[in-house]
Amino acid sequence: MNSARYGGLEAGGTKMICVVTDENGKWLDQRTLPTLSPEETIPQIVDFFKKNAITSLGIGSFGPLDLKEGSHTYGSLASTPKKGWKGYPLLEAFKSLEVPISLTTDVNGAALAEATKGAAKGLDSCLYITVGTGIGAGAVVNGTILEGFSHPEMGHVPVKPHENDTFEGHCPYHGTCAEGMAAGPAIQARWGKAGVELSEDDRVWQLEAYYLAQAIAAYTYILSPKKVILGGGVMKQKQLYSLVREELIRQLNGYVDIGDPDEYVVAPGLDEHAGIEGALLLAKQAEKMALS
Amino acid sequence: MNSARYGGLEAGGTKMICVVTDENGKWLDQRTLPTLSPEETIPQIVDFFKKNAITSLGIGSFGPLDLKEGSHTYGSLASTPKKGWKGYPLLEAFKSLEVPISLTTDVNGAALAEATKGAAKGLDSCLYITVGTGIGAGAVVNGTILEGFSHPEMGHVPVKPHENDTFEGHCPYHGTCAEGMAAGPAIQARWGKAGVELSEDDRVWQLEAYYLAQAIAAYTYILSPKKVILGGGVMKQKQLYSLVREELIRQLNGYVDIGDPDEYVVAPGLDEHAGIEGALLLAKQAEKMALS
Ligand SMILES: Nc1ncnc2c1ncn2[C@@H]1O[C@H](COP(=O)(O)OP(=O)(O)O)[C@@H](O)[C@H]1O
Ligand SMILES: Nc1ncnc2c1ncn2[C@@H]1O[C@H](COP(=O)(O)OP(=O)(O)O)[C@@H](O)[C@H]1O
Ligand SMILES: [Zn+2]
Ligand SMILES: [Zn+2]
Repeated sequence: MNSARYGGLEAGGTKMICVVTDENGKWLDQRTLPTLSPEETIPQIVDFFKKNAITSLGIGSFGPLDLKEGSHTYGSLASTPKKGWKGYPLLEAFKSLEVPISLTTDVNGAALAEATKGAAKGLDSCLYITVGTGIGAGAVVNGTILEGFSHPEMGHVPVKPHENDTFEGHCPYHGTCAEGMAAGPAIQARWGKAGVELSEDDRVWQLEAYYLAQAIAAYTYILSPKKVILGGGVMKQKQLYSLVREELIRQLNGYVDIGDPDEYVVAPGLDEHAGIEGALLLAKQAEKMALS
Repeated sequence: MNSARYGGLEAGGTKMICVVTDENGKWLDQRTLPTLSPEETIPQIVDFFKKNAITSLGIGSFGPLDLKEGSHTYGSLASTPKKGWKGYPLLEAFKSLEVPISLTTDVNGAALAEATKGAAKGLDSCLYITVGTGIGAGAVVNGTILEGFSHPEMGHVPVKPHENDTFEGHCPYHGTCAEGMAAGPAIQARWGKAGVELSEDDRVWQLEAYYLAQAIAAYTYILSPKKVILGGGVMKQKQLYSLVREELIRQLNGYVDIGDPDEYVVAPGLDEHAGIEGALLLAKQAEKMALS
């Protein structure tokens, strides 16, 4: 059968992006819905994919997700603060499509897409980080999405507070983890204004770079990724890219050789499309796994 | 040809362990040499493997190693403090054997061995950490050794100093990285005595557990390993295992579910043999890769 129809779903906390392609990746249909309650939103998505007679489905979703092998609640949303979604059995909800499904986190999907056709094209390893409402990251290692006992939660790595920073941190679990110190809401809480209003304040971005570099140093020591792709709302402050590179070089202090920093820490190659492209690649993988 | 002879070399800073097995893993010959200069030591190892007519070779070596794809100095030792070995072309030195060779770090080899026949047997992911003269770690991810642009350097993750700890850290590159705060020489430098003499001092091990748990929290967030195996000289202080587990639970603060901590953080299953067993598994992999 050579008439595959891949369904891709980028499930975000704000919106749901659904795309259907043919086996060559040509977009056949698409639909974007606001993320309301599961009861309102999911049936519409199921209908959309049914109407398009997809043959496999890939989902890159906001999280945290339960991806524990053998878990009774495998494929459901875990303790998300998103109202109505906590514990929602996401994977289960698409069973009625009766097609192979591959589910992972949005950032894992984005990492796969960037490694396949984006900024890390042709590389068998990369890291995709988003700095937005939270900090999340996904990785490709030896050509495959990195998962273990569940999906990584890289945004929560511990960081060392800067000696001039007295902010107690904004993560309800850890206070001063990377997300607690450097995600958008942490910037807002520390400085009393949203990042977009602080563009001109150099101290803000110097400190931001200090924490992001510290997280990237940890990722570098642990994963040795061939490329680090840095995206998300906060990275709209383009000056951050060079600040992060400088801080990273300073913190690594020559212990590992990351090569040209401009080639190591880069912006996404697929812009806003990494998520949905990742979901479509997952659909292809789901088909392959079902056949093998 | 069903008469493979696997050569395994565990290349350590103190000693070199060489073993030859048949294709079923039966040990046929072995030799252990002190690690003197490369010129004194390596020819003896080459002779040993030649005499045994090995058909492939696996090496798990101390490091850091240059394992960068396409590097002119691929397979050589990088900036090791071990006298005479800095820049030594380790892989090159065994070319005259004319057999397929697989080279990685000692800890990567140990992780592979623990995942294949040790404490993580049957799991497709694990982390092997040694806390000794340095802190090193190797990982298996999706059944394969984790490497990226080079091998990981997990011991150098940044850590947050404990509020009661004024020690400036012992890593020449980073001061207060995990290795700089918690490896054997850091204990010696902070307390003025070697760890073995401090067994009775609870403060020492409580603080040690604080730093080890912080490193393991970072590894957990980033890699989501199915098992964390903790070995090396410092872990001879057996009380550390439960202290590390308690600290880890405290620091994760419920954000990720590692299951039963006694099953998550464990001692090596292969004791001192993980290194050489890993090297022998690498020899098997080298054979397979040469055939494919
Ligand atoms: N131009 C900007 N400069 C700094 N911060 C920004 C900018 N635009 C958005 N942000 C911050 O990024 C966060 C939203 O991130 P985004 O990646 O767009 O969404 P999400 O993480 O929810 O998917 C908010 O905290 C917002 O303050
Ligand atoms: N019983 C012990 N208690 C505490 N520390 C120990 C003990 N035995 C060895 N060490 C420490 O472990 C380190 C050596 O680690 P080891 O794993 O044996 O060697 P290496 O890391 O050099 O391969 C030294 O710093 C030593 O002080
Ligand atoms: Zn956190
Ligand atoms: Zn260090």
